[in-house]
Amino acid sequence: MQLHDFTLSGNCYKVRLFLSLLGREAELLPVDLRGGAHKRPEFLALNPRGQVPVLVDEGQALYDPQAILVYLAGRYANDAWYPRDALGQARVACWLSFAANEAAHGPGKARLHVLFRLPGDLEEAQRRAVQVLELLDGQLARHAWLAETPTPTIADVAVYPYAALAGDGGLDLAPYANLNAWFARIRALPGYIGMPGL
Amino acid sequence: MQLHDFTLSGNCYKVRLFLSLLGREAELLPVDLRGGAHKRPEFLALNPRGQVPVLVDEGQALYDPQAILVYLAGRYANDAWYPRDALGQARVACWLSFAANEAAHGPGKARLHVLFRLPGDLEEAQRRAVQVLELLDGQLARHAWLAETPTPTIADVAVYPYAALAGDGGLDLAPYANLNAWFARIRALPGYIGMPGL
Repeated sequence: MQLHDFTLSGNCYKVRLFLSLLGREAELLPVDLRGGAHKRPEFLALNPRGQVPVLVDEGQALYDPQAILVYLAGRYANDAWYPRDALGQARVACWLSFAANEAAHGPGKARLHVLFRLPGDLEEAQRRAVQVLELLDGQLARHAWLAETPTPTIADVAVYPYAALAGDGGLDLAPYANLNAWFARIRALPGYIGMPGL
Repeated sequence: MQLHDFTLSGNCYKVRLFLSLLGREAELLPVDLRGGAHKRPEFLALNPRGQVPVLVDEGQALYDPQAILVYLAGRYANDAWYPRDALGQARVACWLSFAANEAAHGPGKARLHVLFRLPGDLEEAQRRAVQVLELLDGQLARHAWLAETPTPTIADVAVYPYAALAGDGGLDLAPYANLNAWFARIRALPGYIGMPGL
């Protein structure tokens, strides 16, 4: 198994984190994003979207961080990480969408603007990030894990990185008690690993 | 089964479309978005994100359009609409993320700016929409259906509305031959229904 990776990417980290939680290892292949390696033909052949991470397993290239978590859960995890019933899968899918959309465009983008000086509307990203943190704090006031399961799922792994890294985008995480308690639960999981900034 | 619905929403339409493809019916409960009904406490109790659609089935409220498709496929469809194997589910999840993120922020947002006069950066949304249409056209040059399956999946249902409605956002769909052929394949499916603009 090989992971085309970038250390500071939260989307790559969520794959590294899930692999570690499962006790699995992948060979890490660093992608030179600053040098534009992700926009070259050989990388676009793996992922036409031109983004890290890309996982290669058993001859298949998989892209999109949420899709990679779905794959790893189905292939290597027990059903607790990704329930098999319709309602359970839908509750997970609800937060995979949130990871792909709201978390990426809120705290994810604010972090890109501040940490990597990506041009764009920082205030708009921070405004969205506050909505994201409030929604998460509300959900986590009602449930220990995002998908309303007794144990963590890939929904938690998908959303955690950009929520936890929100400070990199100038957000203050201190007001969100339920969110911080969830961070602590995730960090206590066997096999948990961090990344720069966490 | 009840669907909290808004006729002109592509996200609601994708649920109505999938129900029709499955030969299922839901009671449609129109939500007065213009009057702000989706931000009132009784609606936020169903969906804290304050968005349509919401599906209520067997006493459970489900939100997020992609999650609703996952639920309906698992509960009421055969496995072809949402494969059960790890690789098949990941290939679908890859395009559910695309529906939640790129399709919503590209052609979806361009349509909101033009058709509903939502303030924002129309040029940026149109620029993203062109990337979305190009990526879809490329994928559909290689595969008949987005998730690389022999028959359609919920990935196609999730992405179709905002791609097909791109003209509402000032985009020209004519250059994308593979995309138009896919539109035609979807429109030929038994049970297909349209919406205003399609």
